[in-house]
Amino acid sequence: MATPSPGYAITVRVEAPSSSTATSGLAAAVSAAGGALTALDVVESFADRLVVDVTCDAVDSDHAESITKALTQVAGVTVRKVSDRTFLIHLGGKLEVSPKVPLKHRDDLSRAYTPGVARVCLAIAENPEDARRLTIKRNTVAVVTDGSAVLGLGNIGPAAALPVMEGKAALFKQFAGVDAWPVCLDTQDTDEIVSIVRALAPVYGGINLEDIAAPRCFEIEARLRELLDIPVFHDDQHGTAIVVLAALYNALRVVGKSLDSVRVVVSGVGAAGHAIIRLLAAQGVTDIVACDRRGAVHAENGEGRDEFRRWIAQNTNPRAATGSLREVLAGADVFIGVSGPNLLTGEDVATMAPDAIVFALANPDPEVDPIAAREHAAVVATGRSDFPNQINNVLAFPGFFRGMLDAGAHRITDAVMLAAARAIADAVGPDQVNASYIVPSVFDPEVAPAVAAAVKHAAQSG
Amino acid sequence: MATPSPGYAITVRVEAPSSSTATSGLAAAVSAAGGALTALDVVESFADRLVVDVTCDAVDSDHAESITKALTQVAGVTVRKVSDRTFLIHLGGKLEVSPKVPLKHRDDLSRAYTPGVARVCLAIAENPEDARRLTIKRNTVAVVTDGSAVLGLGNIGPAAALPVMEGKAALFKQFAGVDAWPVCLDTQDTDEIVSIVRALAPVYGGINLEDIAAPRCFEIEARLRELLDIPVFHDDQHGTAIVVLAALYNALRVVGKSLDSVRVVVSGVGAAGHAIIRLLAAQGVTDIVACDRRGAVHAENGEGRDEFRRWIAQNTNPRAATGSLREVLAGADVFIGVSGPNLLTGEDVATMAPDAIVFALANPDPEVDPIAAREHAAVVATGRSDFPNQINNVLAFPGFFRGMLDAGAHRITDAVMLAAARAIADAVGPDQVNASYIVPSVFDPEVAPAVAAAVKHAAQSG
Repeated sequence: MATPSPGYAITVRVEAPSSSTATSGLAAAVSAAGGALTALDVVESFADRLVVDVTCDAVDSDHAESITKALTQVAGVTVRKVSDRTFLIHLGGKLEVSPKVPLKHRDDLSRAYTPGVARVCLAIAENPEDARRLTIKRNTVAVVTDGSAVLGLGNIGPAAALPVMEGKAALFKQFAGVDAWPVCLDTQDTDEIVSIVRALAPVYGGINLEDIAAPRCFEIEARLRELLDIPVFHDDQHGTAIVVLAALYNALRVVGKSLDSVRVVVSGVGAAGHAIIRLLAAQGVTDIVACDRRGAVHAENGEGRDEFRRWIAQNTNPRAATGSLREVLAGADVFIGVSGPNLLTGEDVATMAPDAIVFALANPDPEVDPIAAREHAAVVATGRSDFPNQINNVLAFPGFFRGMLDAGAHRITDAVMLAAARAIADAVGPDQVNASYIVPSVFDPEVAPAVAAAVKHAAQSG
Repeated sequence: MATPSPGYAITVRVEAPSSSTATSGLAAAVSAAGGALTALDVVESFADRLVVDVTCDAVDSDHAESITKALTQVAGVTVRKVSDRTFLIHLGGKLEVSPKVPLKHRDDLSRAYTPGVARVCLAIAENPEDARRLTIKRNTVAVVTDGSAVLGLGNIGPAAALPVMEGKAALFKQFAGVDAWPVCLDTQDTDEIVSIVRALAPVYGGINLEDIAAPRCFEIEARLRELLDIPVFHDDQHGTAIVVLAALYNALRVVGKSLDSVRVVVSGVGAAGHAIIRLLAAQGVTDIVACDRRGAVHAENGEGRDEFRRWIAQNTNPRAATGSLREVLAGADVFIGVSGPNLLTGEDVATMAPDAIVFALANPDPEVDPIAAREHAAVVATGRSDFPNQINNVLAFPGFFRGMLDAGAHRITDAVMLAAARAIADAVGPDQVNASYIVPSVFDPEVAPAVAAAVKHAAQSG
C-alpha cells in the first residue's frame, strides 16, 4: 500500500555527461526504481558535464537508498552527495523565540526591561489576574510530554520526542496564532510530572499533554485538572475524540442514521479510545462495545484493571456482548479503530450493518485496508493523508486553544468539546458533504477560526 | 537625584480649545510640573477644539499623576484618557514563538511533522548527541526563576516575575540571536527546583538562573552543575562578576594600578558579592575584605553560617581586618558595592587610597551618591543608566551564551568567565578608555559578538 511520500524526499546531487539525454536518463532511473521525481535542477554546467540535483520522494529509507543506487548505475553518472530533505529542514530546530517589542535604544530598554518593568511586576503582584493581560500567559500553551508514547514509535524518551513537540508548536502558531512551547520531561514518574507541570503553570494559559502513555496519561490529566486554573488538554484523548465526533456527525449525515440509534464498536482502549467512548456517551450514543486485544470489554472482565478500564466496563456494552473484535463487529453500524494494524479484513466489514461507517485510524497501517473496507462500507476514514477523509488532530487543537485562551477559560468541559466537534463538522457545507468528504482539509483556513469562535462562546456560556 | 525616565512615560489624551496658544499651554503645564515632554500629537481637529496626545516622561507614578493633574488645570482642557506607555508595550506579553520552517501545504507538513518527523526522532533516539543538530536545543536557553529575589522588589513570586524574564529573553534574542524561554516556577523549595530544572533540560542548551534568593541560589546552581551536561549560569552571580571584572580591568588601566596589588572592599555577600569575590580571587586579587550588614567578614565570625559565607570567611581578609564597612574602607583602592542604598558618604570615599575606584551598584539607589563619590574617587561606576559607566549584565549574558551554545559547551569554567570579562573590557579601545568610559555602551553592537567569540574559544580550549 505504501506510496512515495514527501516525508521521505531526498535530493541526490550527481555529475552526468553533458549529452542531450543525460537528464532524461536520470529521470528514467528514478522512475524505474519506483521514486516519484519532483525536480531536476541543473546547478552547474560545463562543456563536458553537468551537475544536477535530482529531487524525488521515496517510500522509506531503504527505498531512498535503492533509488540512489539506481542513479549510480546510469552510464557516466557519479553521485556526489545525498541530502535528506526532512533532515535538512530540521537542522537547528523548527522554532524561534522573538521579541514582540522594539529594543533598539535606551528608551525601549527602560520600558521593556529595567527600570520600567518593575511597575508591571508590582501590578501583577497586587492583582494576579493581570498576568493574563500583561504577560505572555494570555497566548501561551505548554506542549508537555515525557516521551513515553511518541507517534507510533513508543517510549523513545524526551530528547527524541522533541522534534514532534516542535512541530506541534509550529502548527499551533501557523493555524491559530498560539505561542506554544515544548516541555519534554526527563522523567516518567506520574507524581513528578504532575508537580512539575503545576510548578510551570504561571507562564501558561493552557497545558497540552502529548504522547504520554496510558494509563499514566489519565491520572496526570485528572490530577492537573484539579490543581490548575488553566485548561488541561490531552491531545491524544480530547483532540482525537473531537475530530472523530466531527467526522461521525458528517458520516451519519451521509448514511442518514442518527447518533442515538447506532451500534458502535471501538477497537483500542488507550488514551484515544477511552476519550472517544466518553465523548460519544456524552453525546447520547448508547450502544458502544469497546475491544482490547482480548476482545470485548464487559462488566465481567473489567474488574481488577485500572480505574479507566473499569469505567469503560461499567459504562458501555449494554447488551453484554462477548467475544473477539471480529465477532462483536457483526451487525455494528460504526467501527472506530484506534489500535493496531491489520486486525480486520474486507470480509469482516461485510458482516456490519448496511451503510456501515469504518474509521480505521491506526497509523501508518490502519486496522483494515481502506480500499477493501470501502467495498463493503458506505464511508471509510483513516489517519493517513493519502486516502480521503483524514482524521487529523490538526483540525482541532489550534482553534480549540485559540478559543480557550480568548475566553480566558479555566477548564475544559464536555460542552466545549462538543462545540469544537460541531464547528469542524459544519466547516463541510451541506452541499459538500459526501462519502469522500466528511471532514474539511487540514489546510482549510476557515476551520481554526470557526472552532475558536465556537469554543470561546461555549466556554463563556459554561 | 531622580530625573524623568522613559520607564515612567505617559501619554495623556486631552481635549483643548482650538486657539493658537492651546498646545503651548499644554507644553508649559508639563514643564512646570517637572515632566519631560517628548511629543505633542494633534490626533483630531475640529473648528472649535483639538484632541491632543501629550507624551512625557515622569519620575515615578505619583509624578505622572501630578503631571496629569496639572494638565486638567489648563483653562478649557479636559483629560480624556491617560495611557502608561510602559504598560502599553507589555499588553499581551513581550515574546512570541514562531515556526522557522514553512507549513503552507501538505509536503511541508509531511516533512516538519508526521510522517517525516518520525525518522528524525529515531535518529535522536539512536544517537542522543544529534539533538544538538536536529532540534532547538542547539540555540535555546531556559531563563529560570522562582520569583524570590526579583530586581529590587524582593519575593514577588513567579507570575509577577514573568515580565522581567520575558524582557531578559527578548534581550537574549535581540543581542545574540539566542532563543530564550521564561521558566517561572511556582515553588521555592530547593530540592523541587533542582529536580524540575533537571527534568526540563532535554529541550535546552543552557540554563540561566535568575533572581533566585541567596543562599538557595548557590545550592541550586552547584547541584545543577553536577547533574546536567549543559552550562548552568546564574546571572546575578556570574553575569555581574564578569561585568564587574571587565570594568575593573579598565578602571585599573585609568589609574595605573594592577589587580594583584590592590586592596578591595566588597559590600554585600549575596549572590553577586560572592561571585565577584570568587572571580577576583581566581584572577589573583589577594587583599579582599567582604562586608555584610554587621561589618567585615573574617575567619573568626564566619563560622556557623552557610557554607558560602564560610568560604568567604576562609578565603578573604588576609589582614584579619575587623570593624564596620566605613572602618575597613579606609586605605582601600577599590570599593565594590552590591548591597543597599546610601551606606557611605563622600567623606568615607575620601578615606580611601589615592586614585580610588568606586563601583556603587545597588539599584536604583547606589551605596553612595555617585556625584559625591566622584569628588574623591578617580573612577566611579553605578548600575544606573543616567550616570557614566553603567555596570549592566546585558553586556555579558547574551554573548556569553551565544559562545557557549556555539561551542556546544557542557560547563562553565573560570577561564570562560575571564575570557568574557576580557572581551568586554577590550571592547573599549586604548584610545577610548578614561574615567567616564570604562565599559562599552550596552547598545554597542560589537560587544556580544566579541564576547561570543572569546567564550567559544575559551570553552573549546578548556
